[in-house]
Amino acid sequence: MTVQPPPEIAVPLVPLEGVDDVGLVRNHVSAGTPVRVVGGVVAAVDDVPAGHKVAVRAIAEGARVRKYGEVIGIALRDIVPGAHVHLHNLGVGSQNLGPATAPAGPSVWTPPATPTRDHFLGYRRPDGRAATRNYFAVLPTVNCSSTVARMIAQAANAQIKAEGLDGVIALTHDLGCGMAEGTAGDDILRRTLRGYAGHANLAGAVVVSLGCEINQPEHVLGDGPAVETLSIQDLGGTAATVNAALDTLRAMASRLAGMRREPIPVSELTLGLQCGGSDAYSGLTANPTLGVAADLLVAAGGKVILGETPEIYGAEHILRARAATPAVGRRIDDLIAWWQAYTANNDAELDNNPSKGNRDGGITTIWEKSLGAVLKGGTSPLNDVVAYADQVTAKGLTFMDTPGYDPVSATGMVAGGANLLAFTTGRGSVFGARPTPSLKISTTTRLFEHMRADMDFDAGPAMSRDDQIRHGILLFEALVDMASGTPSKSEALGFGTEEIVPWRMGAVV
Amino acid sequence: MTVQPPPEIAVPLVPLEGVDDVGLVRNHVSAGTPVRVVGGVVAAVDDVPAGHKVAVRAIAEGARVRKYGEVIGIALRDIVPGAHVHLHNLGVGSQNLGPATAPAGPSVWTPPATPTRDHFLGYRRPDGRAATRNYFAVLPTVNCSSTVARMIAQAANAQIKAEGLDGVIALTHDLGCGMAEGTAGDDILRRTLRGYAGHANLAGAVVVSLGCEINQPEHVLGDGPAVETLSIQDLGGTAATVNAALDTLRAMASRLAGMRREPIPVSELTLGLQCGGSDAYSGLTANPTLGVAADLLVAAGGKVILGETPEIYGAEHILRARAATPAVGRRIDDLIAWWQAYTANNDAELDNNPSKGNRDGGITTIWEKSLGAVLKGGTSPLNDVVAYADQVTAKGLTFMDTPGYDPVSATGMVAGGANLLAFTTGRGSVFGARPTPSLKISTTTRLFEHMRADMDFDAGPAMSRDDQIRHGILLFEALVDMASGTPSKSEALGFGTEEIVPWRMGAVV
Ligand SMILES: [Ca+2]
Ligand SMILES: [Ca+2]
Ligand SMILES: [Ca+2]
Ligand SMILES: [Ca+2]
Ligand SMILES: [Ca+2]
Repeated sequence: MTVQPPPEIAVPLVPLEGVDDVGLVRNHVSAGTPVRVVGGVVAAVDDVPAGHKVAVRAIAEGARVRKYGEVIGIALRDIVPGAHVHLHNLGVGSQNLGPATAPAGPSVWTPPATPTRDHFLGYRRPDGRAATRNYFAVLPTVNCSSTVARMIAQAANAQIKAEGLDGVIALTHDLGCGMAEGTAGDDILRRTLRGYAGHANLAGAVVVSLGCEINQPEHVLGDGPAVETLSIQDLGGTAATVNAALDTLRAMASRLAGMRREPIPVSELTLGLQCGGSDAYSGLTANPTLGVAADLLVAAGGKVILGETPEIYGAEHILRARAATPAVGRRIDDLIAWWQAYTANNDAELDNNPSKGNRDGGITTIWEKSLGAVLKGGTSPLNDVVAYADQVTAKGLTFMDTPGYDPVSATGMVAGGANLLAFTTGRGSVFGARPTPSLKISTTTRLFEHMRADMDFDAGPAMSRDDQIRHGILLFEALVDMASGTPSKSEALGFGTEEIVPWRMGAVV
Repeated sequence: MTVQPPPEIAVPLVPLEGVDDVGLVRNHVSAGTPVRVVGGVVAAVDDVPAGHKVAVRAIAEGARVRKYGEVIGIALRDIVPGAHVHLHNLGVGSQNLGPATAPAGPSVWTPPATPTRDHFLGYRRPDGRAATRNYFAVLPTVNCSSTVARMIAQAANAQIKAEGLDGVIALTHDLGCGMAEGTAGDDILRRTLRGYAGHANLAGAVVVSLGCEINQPEHVLGDGPAVETLSIQDLGGTAATVNAALDTLRAMASRLAGMRREPIPVSELTLGLQCGGSDAYSGLTANPTLGVAADLLVAAGGKVILGETPEIYGAEHILRARAATPAVGRRIDDLIAWWQAYTANNDAELDNNPSKGNRDGGITTIWEKSLGAVLKGGTSPLNDVVAYADQVTAKGLTFMDTPGYDPVSATGMVAGGANLLAFTTGRGSVFGARPTPSLKISTTTRLFEHMRADMDFDAGPAMSRDDQIRHGILLFEALVDMASGTPSKSEALGFGTEEIVPWRMGAVV
């Protein structure tokens, strides 16, 4: 008679012990494997893929199911301990959560640690603004001038060099005509392109117009760096426009001489927060770690932008409770109401957002995804709420209304003045956002190793709060280094212009 | 006493003498200049810019104003002979024109001339389809894989050569995630990308996926040429994906050996018709000339696609009268109704379409613009009406429902199988549409000279019907030459991938 070794017990990670109904399995658990639950050990009822949820206590049909102590969904049927919890037994129905009343205002905020850096090495613009990069941009007013803009950038990068110049980038896009003037969509496009044309990270910009488009160059010009405009129709075509732009850029480059990085307080950094391709670890490792880094920047007097409104849907009560004033809290509610109407009016629903990748990764509901998404905003008070691509002016944490789709969201933040981006990913992403450098943070070490040449920072080990604070400090320092000129992986590889995607709203005519 | 020479009399061009209320001045006419009107000569009442309209008879407030014998608007006030007719005295109000009843069906159609070519030199695909070009394409499923697609194309163009290969193109776009599954917008994107992946002008395609996007690779794959798919997340990032794609393309190139052009009947050509940056001469020269060329291709058994639904608004009764069956005519009416709802639902109106460029060029109303736009479809029966990016299967003239915005409209036609495009322009355009070659037709000799390096064909001299037929035959021959491999100007310059803009419909989430 042979003795079988006792099967190894799977111990799910339960983010908030004593409150949560579910835990996450680190590795694949086969049905029948012993699994630790509240009060003992049971045999797993189903196969549970790595990173997915398992019930750690009995949950009755209709009950609210908690993770991180927050409700992530409603049980669609009775769920026994050891069962896989996912799309087949967890949903959100038509319920909304959280009080509709405004908060009392947050109590005094304490950051999780003291900022370890107070300066970065940046460029000081003549108008006093701080920059983390030094690009020339070629900005088309309309898709019709986008190829010419790309030709100009390509020729300029080959021909024009100047000390401290990071390159010439073509900020091409699909819009600018075939749209109704004076609509919300028109406003958004103008604001977005104005934000790019005037971005602090540009040492100069050439706006290239076809000539007959609805989005005329004057709609694009803000105050900002040297901006010159050229019209293909006026100049007589492609070759003449490329030559004129090269002359303009050469003259701009000659005026650049002597641009050097200098110490600038980190309080002049504006950090945009992004997540894309979330998995079950996004809310467990990378987002709370980024939350710590964001809190450090806020503690140092800097600005942080949280966005992706459809991705906070279901977790808006958390932001409302952190609003600096009742008015700020009400604007979060207004945004949610606007999005409900926008999606309903377009045959979509907010709940449709968890993508195939999210679902495969173990995220079941938009509430669960949203909860994880909000964590990257850290814990500081919410000081302002702004529209897409609006200039961010408040110190501390600002919420910007953007879609969740990465390129559209990041485009709004860059237009709003972000001079740094931090991007968490669980499935993997190769995102870039010139002229703003973007740092890629993996949720797991497995992903970090798998996409090592594209990932900048591994948050995989940061599962406990202590580890999140330790890694959050390292991440804050990596962001300050990037601000000082250390290229991110995506930047070094050349990403970041295809990804400029202004939010298209309204009819295409 | 000195004798003043008699001032020169300005003679406006009246498209349909005896019926039209307005004529077009060829050169700027200052107020006071004698101008020929019906029944005599009067002093011009206003300054009239070149190409703009002048009243050639008295028009009462509320009367229908005619050009080409068709109504282009309603007089907003009494208009005297010699007055400038434009935005200040001509509008459309909320009126609709033409019978709502279906036509009796067109009588026997006679083309304006006999086709002068019956074959072109093209590529025959293994499945029997005819191609005018021979490209490899790298097609991203989502914006997130667009930069990688561009990197692949760039490296492949440098490293991979094969006899008869026109190059490797990255068909980058902004969409593929942040959208609701199962909506009309999702359908349109899938259909569009499937049309590209399976386009006859591709000898092979590599579909590049990020991995976690909503628009998964299987949505893109139709039947068509060799299509292989690669996933960035599966392969482990940018470098691995670029290398894998280069291996795939190298293997495809080795199988290409011996591809040669061969004579193919012109009946296997599918010509997409476009106009962009219209002016007052679009309807006077380039569009009717293109109409002749389109008629010749139809007479030879080929396919022609007219589109830009918002640009035929107000002239739909002309198409309805040419419908091959009452059902086809009703589908034109259905499209117009759909567009009225679509624009109303998005705070736009169909009438907003004449852009600044159109207005500056002398086009006052959408009816006037539409009338000119319809002329490029020639005079043949309308045999079919299809949705955006649908495969065009009927011989003769098909109407495809597309927006008027050039890149979006052309993208639908290329996806629908167009292997030739003809693009008329009055203000100037630098449009391209790979993998389909696009021929640029100027409305005036002035424009042709001004943008000589970008324009392929000058329709400026074609003001009379005889001249339009003569130039239309030349244009037909230029299109057949382009089909046989003669590069268009935009193709030689490298245009045609930025301009791929699938019609985005619905909310961005
Ligand atoms: Ca996102
Ligand atoms: Ca883009
Ligand atoms: Ca148009
Ligand atoms: Ca057009
Ligand atoms: Ca594009």
